[in-house]
Amino acid sequence: MPTKKMTVGWIGAGRMGYEMAGRLARGGADVLVWNRTKAKAEPLQKYGAKVADDVSELAARDIVFCMVSTWKDVKEVVTNLLARGKSKPKMLIECSSISLEGSAELREMLDKKGIQYLAAPVSGNAKVIKAGKLTFVCSGPKKAFDLARPFLDSIAVNSSYVGEGELSRIVKICHNVFLGVVTQSLAEITILAQKAGVPRHAFLEFMNQSVMGSTFSRYKTPAFVNLDFKVTFTPHLLRKDMDLGLDAGRKFEVPMPLASATRDLIQSMIGQGWTEQDFATLLLQQAEASGLKLKPENMEVGDGLS
Amino acid sequence: MPTKKMTVGWIGAGRMGYEMAGRLARGGADVLVWNRTKAKAEPLQKYGAKVADDVSELAARDIVFCMVSTWKDVKEVVTNLLARGKSKPKMLIECSSISLEGSAELREMLDKKGIQYLAAPVSGNAKVIKAGKLTFVCSGPKKAFDLARPFLDSIAVNSSYVGEGELSRIVKICHNVFLGVVTQSLAEITILAQKAGVPRHAFLEFMNQSVMGSTFSRYKTPAFVNLDFKVTFTPHLLRKDMDLGLDAGRKFEVPMPLASATRDLIQSMIGQGWTEQDFATLLLQQAEASGLKLKPENMEVGDGLS
Amino acid sequence: MPTKKMTVGWIGAGRMGYEMAGRLARGGADVLVWNRTKAKAEPLQKYGAKVADDVSELAARDIVFCMVSTWKDVKEVVTNLLARGKSKPKMLIECSSISLEGSAELREMLDKKGIQYLAAPVSGNAKVIKAGKLTFVCSGPKKAFDLARPFLDSIAVNSSYVGEGELSRIVKICHNVFLGVVTQSLAEITILAQKAGVPRHAFLEFMNQSVMGSTFSRYKTPAFVNLDFKVTFTPHLLRKDMDLGLDAGRKFEVPMPLASATRDLIQSMIGQGWTEQDFATLLLQQAEASGLKLKPENMEVGDGLS
Amino acid sequence: MPTKKMTVGWIGAGRMGYEMAGRLARGGADVLVWNRTKAKAEPLQKYGAKVADDVSELAARDIVFCMVSTWKDVKEVVTNLLARGKSKPKMLIECSSISLEGSAELREMLDKKGIQYLAAPVSGNAKVIKAGKLTFVCSGPKKAFDLARPFLDSIAVNSSYVGEGELSRIVKICHNVFLGVVTQSLAEITILAQKAGVPRHAFLEFMNQSVMGSTFSRYKTPAFVNLDFKVTFTPHLLRKDMDLGLDAGRKFEVPMPLASATRDLIQSMIGQGWTEQDFATLLLQQAEASGLKLKPENMEVGDGLS
Repeated sequence: MPTKKMTVGWIGAGRMGYEMAGRLARGGADVLVWNRTKAKAEPLQKYGAKVADDVSELAARDIVFCMVSTWKDVKEVVTNLLARGKSKPKMLIECSSISLEGSAELREMLDKKGIQYLAAPVSGNAKVIKAGKLTFVCSGPKKAFDLARPFLDSIAVNSSYVGEGELSRIVKICHNVFLGVVTQSLAEITILAQKAGVPRHAFLEFMNQSVMGSTFSRYKTPAFVNLDFKVTFTPHLLRKDMDLGLDAGRKFEVPMPLASATRDLIQSMIGQGWTEQDFATLLLQQAEASGLKLKPENMEVGDGLS
Repeated sequence: MPTKKMTVGWIGAGRMGYEMAGRLARGGADVLVWNRTKAKAEPLQKYGAKVADDVSELAARDIVFCMVSTWKDVKEVVTNLLARGKSKPKMLIECSSISLEGSAELREMLDKKGIQYLAAPVSGNAKVIKAGKLTFVCSGPKKAFDLARPFLDSIAVNSSYVGEGELSRIVKICHNVFLGVVTQSLAEITILAQKAGVPRHAFLEFMNQSVMGSTFSRYKTPAFVNLDFKVTFTPHLLRKDMDLGLDAGRKFEVPMPLASATRDLIQSMIGQGWTEQDFATLLLQQAEASGLKLKPENMEVGDGLS
Repeated sequence: MPTKKMTVGWIGAGRMGYEMAGRLARGGADVLVWNRTKAKAEPLQKYGAKVADDVSELAARDIVFCMVSTWKDVKEVVTNLLARGKSKPKMLIECSSISLEGSAELREMLDKKGIQYLAAPVSGNAKVIKAGKLTFVCSGPKKAFDLARPFLDSIAVNSSYVGEGELSRIVKICHNVFLGVVTQSLAEITILAQKAGVPRHAFLEFMNQSVMGSTFSRYKTPAFVNLDFKVTFTPHLLRKDMDLGLDAGRKFEVPMPLASATRDLIQSMIGQGWTEQDFATLLLQQAEASGLKLKPENMEVGDGLS
Repeated sequence: MPTKKMTVGWIGAGRMGYEMAGRLARGGADVLVWNRTKAKAEPLQKYGAKVADDVSELAARDIVFCMVSTWKDVKEVVTNLLARGKSKPKMLIECSSISLEGSAELREMLDKKGIQYLAAPVSGNAKVIKAGKLTFVCSGPKKAFDLARPFLDSIAVNSSYVGEGELSRIVKICHNVFLGVVTQSLAEITILAQKAGVPRHAFLEFMNQSVMGSTFSRYKTPAFVNLDFKVTFTPHLLRKDMDLGLDAGRKFEVPMPLASATRDLIQSMIGQGWTEQDFATLLLQQAEASGLKLKPENMEVGDGLS
């Protein structure tokens, strides 16, 4: 339960940010939300949140969370947040998926102003947040993490502290590299099982219940079974994260044969024109490479979240 | 809860079989156990199980489970089970990790005698069983599965029916291929995170809690963190299953690039002499390829089971 | 120059066999040719060869060459060759692309009859033979190789002796694995160069002249430049040889990551329906994976043979 | 034969530059050589070359060749060459292995001074030059290539023109990517053949003579057979070129699965400490991964050059 005395500012009420701020407000925190399109933030009032007209209003809050899209957005909103200069938050918690370089630049910017900075990217999507299964990975001063902990706990099921500086950014990249590899491997074995005679829903039901099953494998199951590839994460974004992972591999001299092979398969998928749907179309590419034309199984399968 | 009227025979009281039979007996089933070395089965008496001197005594049971090592063992014990010919079980449930070909030969053998046959390999190890997280994947006549269900439920948290014949065997192979790929990918990203500055226990704690975490990733964590590679599954056995998977891929014309790459990395590990410990020494090979000498972190980390 | 005193029988006047027998006859050897369809062999008479009605007529020859399609064909014609039993050749030289197992079975069959056996597969195609660039790789008794040498020299530019038994068969498989890998790598870099702005003919002209150029890279150039994929070797045949190579890798515990990756790419090509043209359509698959639609450059480029 | 009327300046008398300038001088060209360590250039006088004390003396020459190590060296010597400003060459021909970016910067620098610029990297090493088998790949204005042609022909067996700008740089990178892939594939099949019983020298003799043989496979043969890994090209340099190739693949959206796999194997080799010898130690890594300890065969084998 968040400490009553501290006030919170929240920047960004997109798909993810909306759900996160909502959980925080419902948990009893005093939250002031700002979003570029104010209307998107307004429904949060039903959970007790307040909505700001200008981001600079959040400067008077103790802790400000930021959950937007790109490093460019982060830089702009944080600059605007601190523009007036009359007040400033004690701490900024940045949750967007930004690069190590961006994160380090932000840290420098905040250090100069004496604002604590916690880099805190997440594992999960909007549905995962709703289901109470989001997790944070945090880096920065340990003191900042300890202070933020009650608020993090109000949003997510778990928060891991991995060390100083921007270490949480590299962990998030590792996480996404793993996500790419796991999805491609699932595509390989799902198509193999299907060609051997096992329906995809039966195969994945077993895998999900087995020791290998994960929240991720469960919530990707409807896509694999019924071929609903409404985008959650685009092939281009996944390729970007695989490349960040491989760049880190170069820098730290870590060969990553499975990451490399997966990266090239994602590139092939993009080259063949699968760019607008979810990255889980890796299944479709795998099927074509196996001489198989997939059809939806039209089975009701759970996603493990709802 | 198993139907009271049906009696059960259990062949095999090795590490896995002992735990499975134990759960069945504690669940109230009438179980008669046979094991080559009788002494290993005797402690099961404390759960209410009876212990047979000769496997043929089990022929009078309604359902006989078989959990031994290899197809050679299965063939021998089933032959001995049916040798006297005075009585025979209604159903045999075979849980060992045997090939499609062995499974099909067994089906033919049992069909001739009018004995129903359920192929039912499992996901998990002895600790997983104890923790109540074992799962079955079953194939054969649907009727046989339905009949067996109460007994399966007494042993495992979940049982999936995937179709006729030996389909469950290919599913088990797919499961083990995935296990190999996931382990290698975890090795790649764990070493990358470590070289970037994140301790292995901190990295894996986050991964385990994230949407990508699985029962498997959790129970491999102590090995990755503290470098305890006491064997659970040998590199040679994993290589065998990868090869079975790749053979199935050839037969069904499914290219499996990640499985192939992982298979070759396992072969490299064997070539370099890592053969007597757990296959999770893939982590050590990855570390050496990254110019890193690993040390145990000597951290108490959970395995998600106990 | 072949020894005058020894007489030669030649089985098989297909695309390769015709050219090989032709070179032998033109070189002055006394050659009696048999082919299932006699008409195909008859034009060889213009080089001084004689043509047999029945394969058993060749039993009276000192050395019999065999150049047919499959192990099944080899077994049948050699059986027929020796069926009458009145006479038998001193040596059989088998040049078809057959497996180690077939070759070993043939050796046993011939050993029993006291006939020397040289396993002698080749590197090249019909055009390569015409251009005088064929090579043999031979295994069996060294004495047999020495005796055969003048005849081999009359057909090919070089003959290598690699040892006893069926060793030449494994060497031929290695050769074809290399051919697959080299073709895929050439496809990757040719498409990269093209997307960067270098026409395929200009790129390949340089590669062919560079230290990396080979007879093979030169004779594949017209296919890569002008997209003429008239079959010389089908994707299915190449996949078969890659699989034989990977099987040997398993047997001898040699991981072959590039061979494995290439094998899976060939499977993908087959899965996507490229099966009836030359395996060099790997270039087309690479182009599609790179978002590129290839057009013939319609340039006259040499093949290094004519 | 070089046009008599044009004079040549040569920058760089290292291992490669010395041999190239020597061929030019022996071919009758009027060559003035400058080298940082003048003594290294002086032996070229026996072929009729003159030796300069200061690089700026070369500014009065019609064509200046540059063959040094890195882009940093190129930039420095070209700056010094043009520093006095009294005279300037008509054309600079840059043969070092520099990046696209460096090459483009050099072009801009020379364009401003009205000096034609031919980017002309090479395929081969010092022994290849001596054997008369060097090749150039050139890009820049076609007119410059035509003018330079007689001089290039005096040094190399072939010169390919691939287009405007820095295209020759990307071609050189593709060439080196291929070199990496080919070497790894040769390592895989050589070790497979050896474990099957074929000595390395016998295997490579056949491969070299076959349609797959290249000048490169021939001159690497002594290293593979006798394990002489005196450095010709270091693992770090090869890794750098593989990375440049993969970077170009990213930029042009070309997946390069074999290049990626090879890159990771080179990284593994470096990680395991093979850094000071020739990159052909890929053979040793392959042997260890195959459970094999290699010994020199101590056979005299040709390198196809001398």
